[in-house]
Amino acid sequence: MKRRSYPLSKVYGLLEPGPVVMLTTARQGRNNVMTMSWHTMMEFEPPLIGCVISNRDYTFNILKATRECVIAIPTVELAQKVVRVGNTSGRDIDKFKTFDLTAMPASMVKAPLIDECYANLECKVVDTAMVNKYNFFVLEVVKAWIDPAVKNPETIHHLGKGVFRVAGKTIRFPSKMK
Amino acid sequence: MKRRSYPLSKVYGLLEPGPVVMLTTARQGRNNVMTMSWHTMMEFEPPLIGCVISNRDYTFNILKATRECVIAIPTVELAQKVVRVGNTSGRDIDKFKTFDLTAMPASMVKAPLIDECYANLECKVVDTAMVNKYNFFVLEVVKAWIDPAVKNPETIHHLGKGVFRVAGKTIRFPSKMK
Repeated sequence: MKRRSYPLSKVYGLLEPGPVVMLTTARQGRNNVMTMSWHTMMEFEPPLIGCVISNRDYTFNILKATRECVIAIPTVELAQKVVRVGNTSGRDIDKFKTFDLTAMPASMVKAPLIDECYANLECKVVDTAMVNKYNFFVLEVVKAWIDPAVKNPETIHHLGKGVFRVAGKTIRFPSKMK
Repeated sequence: MKRRSYPLSKVYGLLEPGPVVMLTTARQGRNNVMTMSWHTMMEFEPPLIGCVISNRDYTFNILKATRECVIAIPTVELAQKVVRVGNTSGRDIDKFKTFDLTAMPASMVKAPLIDECYANLECKVVDTAMVNKYNFFVLEVVKAWIDPAVKNPETIHHLGKGVFRVAGKTIRFPSKMK
């Protein structure tokens, strides 16, 4: 996939609509990836993202220790893999290998980009004050990448239990909103 | 609109896909409503929601003082009104009256339900530890309502600057995920 650097000031538009994402980590040279739907933008620039990662997830301790991750945003073509990533644990398998996902080096973190995803956000953990109580991490996006060929990404939005709504038609209104 | 009580255990499926919502408050008998896209589920049951409300918004001080609100989820038919609600301030106008939205009494909070929205979640503020730093409130849903006639709600998902993706087709996979 062709990748272009993407302005940090525009990152909110990628996550604000609530797509399911994949979150990658790396520890001691071993990559892992999980599926995540519980995230929100918290600031425009630098972009801050809040997200909930269960302390039962293999990723939890890795993220606490390494304080780095990549949020990769898939489109509908990847939906089946996204579900499989969400239904397995990195404790048991190498998910990149098992599900044929391509890990590419990031520029500012050790966690890998996912080549098949149209957008990749390199993130550092900047606040863990709510981790003990809510498993809630605050991330700062330090570098963003996008595939410029994807104009209307068909992101997927989890309704629970493996059911997703695919992003449909685009509508536009004059607005003062950012 | 016909309204049915909705199990709290199922609330996550309404917000996990990231729809734009409206958030209502009431103070001294005066209702207000704002538009919000920066929210995430934080716990299944009781349902906890984290959300960012700018300290420049009229709602901010009202929510801090009253600690009650309603999150109302609109479908695409309301998109134009959602934009107008987002582009105006309750400091200047009565938005319910100006945009012809119908405030209905809630059961456990003073903030009103919005009759035109297919889902309404009565919420109480349960944690303000991250309000000063991030304008981030933690809400608990104490009562949920849904219109049972709406089977596939065409929710709207903000991409920024008044551009929205409408929820499209539904896809299903076998999944162990909740």
